[in-house]
Amino acid sequence: MTLHLSAEKSDLERNLDQMFILIMAMLIQLMQFGFAFVEAGVVRSKNVTNIMMKNLLDVLVAGIAYWCLGFAFAYGQGNSFIGWEHWASADLPNAGLAFFFFQFVISATASTIISGAVAERCEMVAYFTYSFFITGFVYPVVSRWVWCSQGWLNQGNNYDINGVSENIHFYDFAGSGAVHLVGGTASFFGALILGPRKGRFHYESNTIIHLRGHSAPMTAFGTFILLVGFMAFNGGSQLSITNPGDGEAVSLSIVNTVLSASAAGYTSVFIRRAGILGRNWSLIYTVNGAIAGMVAICAGCNAVKPWGAFVVGIGAGATFNLVSWLMCKAKIDDPADAVAVHFGGGVWGLLSVAFLNYDTGILSNWDMRSGL
Amino acid sequence: MTLHLSAEKSDLERNLDQMFILIMAMLIQLMQFGFAFVEAGVVRSKNVTNIMMKNLLDVLVAGIAYWCLGFAFAYGQGNSFIGWEHWASADLPNAGLAFFFFQFVISATASTIISGAVAERCEMVAYFTYSFFITGFVYPVVSRWVWCSQGWLNQGNNYDINGVSENIHFYDFAGSGAVHLVGGTASFFGALILGPRKGRFHYESNTIIHLRGHSAPMTAFGTFILLVGFMAFNGGSQLSITNPGDGEAVSLSIVNTVLSASAAGYTSVFIRRAGILGRNWSLIYTVNGAIAGMVAICAGCNAVKPWGAFVVGIGAGATFNLVSWLMCKAKIDDPADAVAVHFGGGVWGLLSVAFLNYDTGILSNWDMRSGL
Amino acid sequence: MTLHLSAEKSDLERNLDQMFILIMAMLIQLMQFGFAFVEAGVVRSKNVTNIMMKNLLDVLVAGIAYWCLGFAFAYGQGNSFIGWEHWASADLPNAGLAFFFFQFVISATASTIISGAVAERCEMVAYFTYSFFITGFVYPVVSRWVWCSQGWLNQGNNYDINGVSENIHFYDFAGSGAVHLVGGTASFFGALILGPRKGRFHYESNTIIHLRGHSAPMTAFGTFILLVGFMAFNGGSQLSITNPGDGEAVSLSIVNTVLSASAAGYTSVFIRRAGILGRNWSLIYTVNGAIAGMVAICAGCNAVKPWGAFVVGIGAGATFNLVSWLMCKAKIDDPADAVAVHFGGGVWGLLSVAFLNYDTGILSNWDMRSGL
Repeated sequence: MTLHLSAEKSDLERNLDQMFILIMAMLIQLMQFGFAFVEAGVVRSKNVTNIMMKNLLDVLVAGIAYWCLGFAFAYGQGNSFIGWEHWASADLPNAGLAFFFFQFVISATASTIISGAVAERCEMVAYFTYSFFITGFVYPVVSRWVWCSQGWLNQGNNYDINGVSENIHFYDFAGSGAVHLVGGTASFFGALILGPRKGRFHYESNTIIHLRGHSAPMTAFGTFILLVGFMAFNGGSQLSITNPGDGEAVSLSIVNTVLSASAAGYTSVFIRRAGILGRNWSLIYTVNGAIAGMVAICAGCNAVKPWGAFVVGIGAGATFNLVSWLMCKAKIDDPADAVAVHFGGGVWGLLSVAFLNYDTGILSNWDMRSGL
Repeated sequence: MTLHLSAEKSDLERNLDQMFILIMAMLIQLMQFGFAFVEAGVVRSKNVTNIMMKNLLDVLVAGIAYWCLGFAFAYGQGNSFIGWEHWASADLPNAGLAFFFFQFVISATASTIISGAVAERCEMVAYFTYSFFITGFVYPVVSRWVWCSQGWLNQGNNYDINGVSENIHFYDFAGSGAVHLVGGTASFFGALILGPRKGRFHYESNTIIHLRGHSAPMTAFGTFILLVGFMAFNGGSQLSITNPGDGEAVSLSIVNTVLSASAAGYTSVFIRRAGILGRNWSLIYTVNGAIAGMVAICAGCNAVKPWGAFVVGIGAGATFNLVSWLMCKAKIDDPADAVAVHFGGGVWGLLSVAFLNYDTGILSNWDMRSGL
Repeated sequence: MTLHLSAEKSDLERNLDQMFILIMAMLIQLMQFGFAFVEAGVVRSKNVTNIMMKNLLDVLVAGIAYWCLGFAFAYGQGNSFIGWEHWASADLPNAGLAFFFFQFVISATASTIISGAVAERCEMVAYFTYSFFITGFVYPVVSRWVWCSQGWLNQGNNYDINGVSENIHFYDFAGSGAVHLVGGTASFFGALILGPRKGRFHYESNTIIHLRGHSAPMTAFGTFILLVGFMAFNGGSQLSITNPGDGEAVSLSIVNTVLSASAAGYTSVFIRRAGILGRNWSLIYTVNGAIAGMVAICAGCNAVKPWGAFVVGIGAGATFNLVSWLMCKAKIDDPADAVAVHFGGGVWGLLSVAFLNYDTGILSNWDMRSGL
């Protein structure tokens, strides 16, 4: 996801690439609506207005923070850790704005993830400060490492493999790491620092009390939107539609998104039905399982075969349930299970690429290279 | 809707066709969100979570069933009834995945239709089995007949008309038959077999009790989404944007969708206001009337003039109310009126093309050909 | 926004322009869903079904009225005030239907604005008549003035500036005036004529009673959709994607939309937090502030720099709060604050272009020309 302002393309091609990026970004922006539904559904009714205010403010603050600071840190001229150019989009040519917009939309998504984990107990001003920091600094810096051509994770290292020097670098096509692992990690610390909601854990008797969300159907509504949003997220990460093979890569990414979501959703249903790890809230667990599947496939959606996406999904459903169970055991309260979904799904997604990549994955290509 | 992998097109054109198909399919996927709202609104509040679980599971199962089996039955190499190739998308080139995705999205839509008719009384496992069967077998086979170049309905027969041999075949551009008639027919049998909800009909006194849905506004919310979804459905069925005339055909399809929905919605309002067929639930009837209009225009949306779409809509509004009234008389309980909307609208839509097609329709071209 | 049927473009280019227009229009159509949520949230629960029926009927009536009459008044051959051609799209070539569809969608938006202002107290038949009149006559005529090449505001006047004759005309790229000022003005008179809701103002004691909407979260949900809708609205107003620079203009419009919304939302939060103009309903005020920002940037979204959009947003947040306060002082009851959002935002937006346009604005180019 580097900012390219290719001079060789024709006017028509550049227009079309921009149009493609913009449309995908608008569909990704719909995910804010989806997350709003999911999170409104998992909190108790008294806190719905509060969490909506947070979700709204974090979208709006992202607009300001990413514009003022974030984009400069992420894609401005600089070193392999951080950039410093285009503050408040200064000197950014209009041809770069589509790319800017795509990145802004993603930064807002990264920020929103956390609102679910800190739901029902975070002060508005603290949340605001925090959102500004995530969209203005944390996410931009990490995304530079992963996606900017200058980033250290993107550049990787050269290894001597069978006498040929080959570059091995971090592979994260659409953000299992740069977006979801970042959001999931922040969610973990947010939830840890804030402590559980009152009444969530009864320490004397070592009992876990489920503070049921007020509306499971709302989370399902949100999931239907997130499914479309993730399709645009993963497909749109191709960032161009006029190079040979772009259409096929976008198609593969989208089909894989569906397959991983389906496999993960059913894996989660199966785990709950079979009584492994407890039986409760089946709609919510199905929803979160499916979302974890979408999170996990981000990293390799254009690099695995459809059957690989299916496998990624099964693993994501299992990982989500495992992390969710561990969080509960550790008595860390995460109302929206954001850590299990985004951290769990993200880590599994990044690892799975190493195994399932159909060109160089460990399963298809067992050699020195894949061992690294 | 045949799978074409045209070799003559340029890379750019193939990319653009794929992009067009993918974007339309993503907008169609939003219909799952729309149907979720409509169906959540028409059931009683105690059953909302249950129906959302069904809607979610049928989208997810469609991902698996259509990928494993459905696409092979529908578009694989085979005979005029069924195909057998590309199981689990094996050997399907990436260039075919956009088309695959479009078809998958439609299969999920066909399956969702039925959840409304069997709402509030279908077992989860039965529903799951049934969704798998619809998206993995029933819909694929029918869609092969109608849309695959090898299908028997698509091939039609040659007739001798005024000394010229002409091919007459089934015309269903965007699925009034292949999608909605299939979904509507399955809905009818589902509703028939399951029997009415408890308390719906009081047989001794021959009274009909309206089990009011818990939220009429929700059904209206859903309709706004479905309106956009049907635009994408009908426009997207063109399946390419780079051939001369594609843009005009897509435009015509979308404009006709709006006009038919408007005419059908107002026809339904008028019928209810005038007291024909009973006076009740006017928002729900307006909603369902408008949806029936969108269903009916699918078949001929690119083949009728705007005034023709207006006429199709009026007929659809009337047909919907008639079928809804008949269902009630026959004491078949259909909470979402899915039979009246999709079966009624679908049949009327298919018939209307024969009359209103502006090239060869009976009204514009009264000859031997149109009589067939 | 003139109807161009350019003969010089290639088939591919014309297809792509149509596709672009259609996709943007479909995303704009989603705004109906967004407005439905916003308005459902601000009314009391007893009136939700009623306002949904209105919103649904006005979309459907727009389909009929704009098709039968509106488009002919707006873009048919005629004089600088009104047109008379293409009644019911007669003789409109299919190549013009994408443009027609875009205009229809906007007319439906203009009409929906008013339902919020007259919420909870307008008769259904009055509302229907009124919607027909707005979408069939009022909006079309105004839009002709502003956007049709024949319109008097679009043509403007020639002035002699430093010896060079220059054409100065009304500048409203995406409808701060043609859409929102029209809708806002109609809202004002609607609210004035209908009078306040029972119990809204207690005249003896000069007290204002806040009739709280039943669901603030719903208005937030709607805002997430409106944000996407306005992006498509402002970006889509470019109406082509194949001319050199189209992609950049669309990108700029969309980025500016986000920035103005963010600035306006936070300005509104700040004004409320600081206790200026009263402290209440902070989620609703944030929502409406952000929407006012989007309304204000319509006029100049492709003509101001990103920092200019930020300034427009700050002004819009302030204007919205001021107008809302004035309406309350004047004891005019506007449940959705439609006047403050659309009239206030619209007027400020139109004025701001004169100052902030980066080519010819008063701030950047202080000469005779800008003084006019």
